Parts: sequence; structure tokens; C-alpha cells
Amino acid sequence: MIFIDACFGKKTPYTPVWIMRQAGRYLDEYKKVREKAGDFLNLCHTPKLAAEVSLQPVDIIGVDAAIMFSDILVIPNEMGMKLNFIKGKGPVFEKPIKNEEDLKNLKSNWEAANKLTYVYETIKIVRNKLDKDKALIGFSGAPWTLATYMIEGQGTKTYAISKKMIYSNPKLVHKILTKITEVVKLYLENQIKAGVNAIQIFDSWANAIEPSKYNEFSWKYIADIASYIKKKYPHIPIIIFPKGINGFLDKVYGDFDVFGVDWGTPMETAKEKLGDKYVLQGNMEPCRLYSKKATEEGIKSIIKVMKNERHIFNLGHGILPDVPVENAKYFVSLCKKLTRKN
Amino acid sequence: MIFIDACFGKKTPYTPVWIMRQAGRYLDEYKKVREKAGDFLNLCHTPKLAAEVSLQPVDIIGVDAAIMFSDILVIPNEMGMKLNFIKGKGPVFEKPIKNEEDLKNLKSNWEAANKLTYVYETIKIVRNKLDKDKALIGFSGAPWTLATYMIEGQGTKTYAISKKMIYSNPKLVHKILTKITEVVKLYLENQIKAGVNAIQIFDSWANAIEPSKYNEFSWKYIADIASYIKKKYPHIPIIIFPKGINGFLDKVYGDFDVFGVDWGTPMETAKEKLGDKYVLQGNMEPCRLYSKKATEEGIKSIIKVMKNERHIFNLGHGILPDVPVENAKYFVSLCKKLTRKN
Repeated sequence: MIFIDACFGKKTPYTPVWIMRQAGRYLDEYKKVREKAGDFLNLCHTPKLAAEVSLQPVDIIGVDAAIMFSDILVIPNEMGMKLNFIKGKGPVFEKPIKNEEDLKNLKSNWEAANKLTYVYETIKIVRNKLDKDKALIGFSGAPWTLATYMIEGQGTKTYAISKKMIYSNPKLVHKILTKITEVVKLYLENQIKAGVNAIQIFDSWANAIEPSKYNEFSWKYIADIASYIKKKYPHIPIIIFPKGINGFLDKVYGDFDVFGVDWGTPMETAKEKLGDKYVLQGNMEPCRLYSKKATEEGIKSIIKVMKNERHIFNLGHGILPDVPVENAKYFVSLCKKLTRKN
Repeated sequence: MIFIDACFGKKTPYTPVWIMRQAGRYLDEYKKVREKAGDFLNLCHTPKLAAEVSLQPVDIIGVDAAIMFSDILVIPNEMGMKLNFIKGKGPVFEKPIKNEEDLKNLKSNWEAANKLTYVYETIKIVRNKLDKDKALIGFSGAPWTLATYMIEGQGTKTYAISKKMIYSNPKLVHKILTKITEVVKLYLENQIKAGVNAIQIFDSWANAIEPSKYNEFSWKYIADIASYIKKKYPHIPIIIFPKGINGFLDKVYGDFDVFGVDWGTPMETAKEKLGDKYVLQGNMEPCRLYSKKATEEGIKSIIKVMKNERHIFNLGHGILPDVPVENAKYFVSLCKKLTRKN
């Protein structure tokens, strides 16, 4: 698979490309399935439908990898936290973690990981239907990103509740992170057993932690997960995408293969600091997809830096719901065209 | 004034300190005045009350500078855009800028700047009541930050409307930015004439623009404003606070005095890249104020880097509304105590 080869830094006929949130609302076909499923969580819970939307972007816009359709919050949900998706508000946990007692009540290890059968079932269907030369990516939220949702109970602008806990009860935060980490390891392991060819860990809220505390409360748990997976499954590339840590890229370490660069990080900087150690993925500013001219300009400037080597094309964050499908197709085909080696 | 001396990099008996959003909801005294004023905009529009809340943090927590109480959105409001503060939603403009026609309808230059009389009146009252050795800071939003509000019509997570305009109609964005820039120059000039001793330009949404476009759509306008003010009023220090540009600090330039460092930027990095050219302000993580121990640790780690030189203490973003006043006092007094030269 071109995508897997590229993850390991091998030469490929062109630079492979996929798009974060590629199975999403910019596709009419997605919206139809979503409507059929009723609510968002039901779509995640129904393997046949989740598989259908996972496959759509491969067929429609021609990306080199599918990513299993799911949500990062299925983990806390199966650990025992009741989750609702509320219109206009997003995901809300009925009972956020406030103390050790709340944490103790949550399921751990295999007990939680084995409840996520609908995810593994989705993977089996997708892998079965997907072209052999296309990769299937599995994923998980990073422990810190999951923990903030579990502590705050919902999305937040300030992360004040989780951070108050970091500064006033760091031990409890570490207990929460440790418990999540153990589940994430087994969850990703189960995904691999079910058939994914690569995994990505999203630390969407990486930039909520101050630089001097980031390793302690987030990265070291990610590195631990990567090391666990890498030892057991060295053939599975690991991609890590921490959003907003561009101020301290030199602190990145660990046994993984691809570093996902967000659009706020100059690609030159990422290459300079991490390009020797890791393949880089990214990082076109998602809003460029509103304009074909801006898309072309964005692709070319990334190619100028990466020179078609040790690189996977992607946006630097998820695709926006009002991007024209035609422009998404244009992005994918132009990335391939401009990087194709003769 | 110690604060002004520090802005110009002169030796001071201790490192001065103030707090962004120091006139705010963590103070009971503020909440009382806010209640009296009715709504938020009315508080901005009533010089006597705005002056009262501007002075409170100097008296209560002992900061070295007052900042005039106002809101960055009074500018677009006086340019002719009707503004409402809606509970739970924040500021909303009734009619966002969609095209050249919308822009043409807005007031410009002195016509807009001279309408902000309530701000200048507030300044006069505060300067009159403030101790002679305490500084009064005036401020404005940066053109880009103001423009996004004016284009989006309200707060946004993705800035998708403004950025769609950047990539599909950059000329219109530049026309909007130019018009705002001219008003900001005169607004700040009027603030100086009314009595402020320093000015700060907030680019709160700096990190909404990708690094390669940041200068074109934001920084060059800020630098233009700084240069205009610096030429006419060289004795007034200029502080610039762009939130979230830590990935490309080496691109910062211009004729100003103090660079405001956000908490996401390691102070070491800021010092290394900008410390020779500019005095640095900041940058304690605001959530550290939830804990006295974390506050002390934060102050000490900043002192370790800055070594009591070319530095002004502040948080790296606004103080949060649920921080105990006692902890804010502790922060201010400890900054002074630990930096005092014998």
C-alpha cells in the first residue's frame, strides 16, 4: 500500500493523501446515511452504516486511505460515562469525573476495550470492502484530550475545570490519564486485530496545556501507548497528531512513525525539527479548500518544502462541512498529480 | 512610573505587574458596578462607571498599572455596526460585512474615532484619580481581530467566513483592514491625548491565520499602527499581544516596545527570539491562579528565565472569572516580592 510505505518513509510513486474528517458533512452521501442513522452516536454504533460512510471518501474523492468512522468519545462512553450529543452544544457527559470515587466506578482495561465491538465490526466490514492497495486507518483520542472531556463534561473554551485539577490535584489527573491510557492501548490493539493498517492518535486539545506541563500530562501517555503498540505490532505505522504544540516541537520524542503537522505550524519548522526522525503529515490550511486557486498555492508551497519525500498529504485540521466536494476532489487529485514521479 | 520605565527596558526597583482582564468578574466590586450598569455595553458607555471598575484592581489587588475599561468592539460599533451582547452567545453584530457596499456604509477616520467620546472621558477620570506613580494603559483590538468579528458577525470556532474571504476575495479583506487601521490609529491617538501612558494592541485571534499569511493580513497593519503612534508619541510605550503565534516569533518586527507573550509560548523561546529587541510581558498560565502553590511555581520559573530584566509580569491571557481574589492578590504581591532589588 502506497500509504503504508509512505508512513515508513519508503519511496512511493506519488505522495499519498487523505483528509481528516473526510467522512463528513461536506458529502451529501454522508448526510443521507447520517439521517438514516438518526443521531450521531447511533451512526457510530451501527457497523453497516459506519462502514458505508468510512468508504465514501475513497470512492468519491479518491483518497489513499480510509479512516474508520467513529468518535473519540466512544471510549469514555464504554468506560461507563453516559454520553449525549446535544444539538448546538455537542457531546455532553451526564456525570463528569469530579473525584476518585467517580473514577473508580468506571470500567477499565479489557472490560472497557471489549465493549467497543461495533468499532471492530465496522473495521472488518471496511477492510473487507476496501481496495487492497488502500489503507485503513484506525484511531483513538489521546488520553489528555479524552480526560478533559471526561472532567469538563463537555466542550470548553478555557479548559478551566481540567486545569484547575492539574494545578490543585495533579495525582487525580494522573490516575484518570493512566486508566484511560490502559484502555486506549487495548482499544488500538483490538482495532489492529480487526484489520486496520495504521493508527492515528489525535491530541486535539494538546494546546490547552502550558508547554512546561505538556509532557507530564499528555505526551508521556501518548509515547507510552505508541511504545506498547510498536513493540507488539511493528508493521503498523503510528501517526500522532497533537494540535497546537508548534512552540515546542523540539520536545517531541517516542517510538512512532508519522508526525501530523497542524496548519498553524510552518511546514519548514516541522521539517527542520522533526523531519529526520519522523515522516510528516499535513498540513494545508482547511479554509484554502474554499478556493481552487488557494488550494493549488497551498499544495505547491508544501511540496516546495517537503520535496516529495517523507511526506503524506493532508489538511492541517478537519475538512469543513461547507467545502464544495468538487474542491476536495481537486485537492486530492492535484496532490497526486504534482507529486507523481515519472 | 515603574511600569513605563520597565516598558522602555530601564532598571526598576522590582518587575512591575498587571493582569489582563484585571477589571473583571473575579472581583465582587466589579460585579456590583456591572449590575448597576445593566448591560455590558452600557458599562463601556458610562465613563463614571467604566472609570470606577478600571481603578478597582489597582486598589484591591495592587497592580502597577490600570487599563481603561472598555471593549475592543466599540470601534466597529461606532463605525456604524449595530452591536448586541447576547447572554450565553457573546457579542453579535446585526449586519456583518459581506461586500464592498457594506464596508462603504461604515464611518471612517476621525468621524468614527471622534464618536468614542465615552472612552476618552473614562480615561480622563481614571488618570485624574489614579496615583501618579501608576500607569494607565489604553488599548485597541488589532485590525484582523476586529475584522473577523465584523465579517463573522459573532464569535466563531473556525473563522471560516473570514478565511473564506481571505482565500477568495483578499482585496475586500485588505480594504476592510485598511479602513479599520485608519480608525485604530486615530482612536489610540485620542486615547493618548486623553491621558493614557501606554497602549496595548490585542490580536486575540492572531492564531486564526496560517503562518504564511499572518503578516499580510494582520501583522503589517499592526506594525503600521505602531509606527504611526511611535513617530508622533515616542514617549508612549507600545505593547503588542498577538495570541498564538509562537510558531513563528522570528517573523515579528516593527517599532514598538513590549511584546506580550501568551502562556502557550515557552518564555525561553520568546526571550531567545525577541528578548534583545523587545521587553517581554507575561506569561503565567491563568489557571495557575487557582492554586497558590502553582502560582508560586509559575512566578519562579518565569523569573528564572527573565532574571528580573526587560520584563513585565502578567498572565499569558485574561484572568478567569472564578479565580479567588485572594490568589490574584497573592500573585501580584509575590511577583513584586520575588523581583525586588535590594
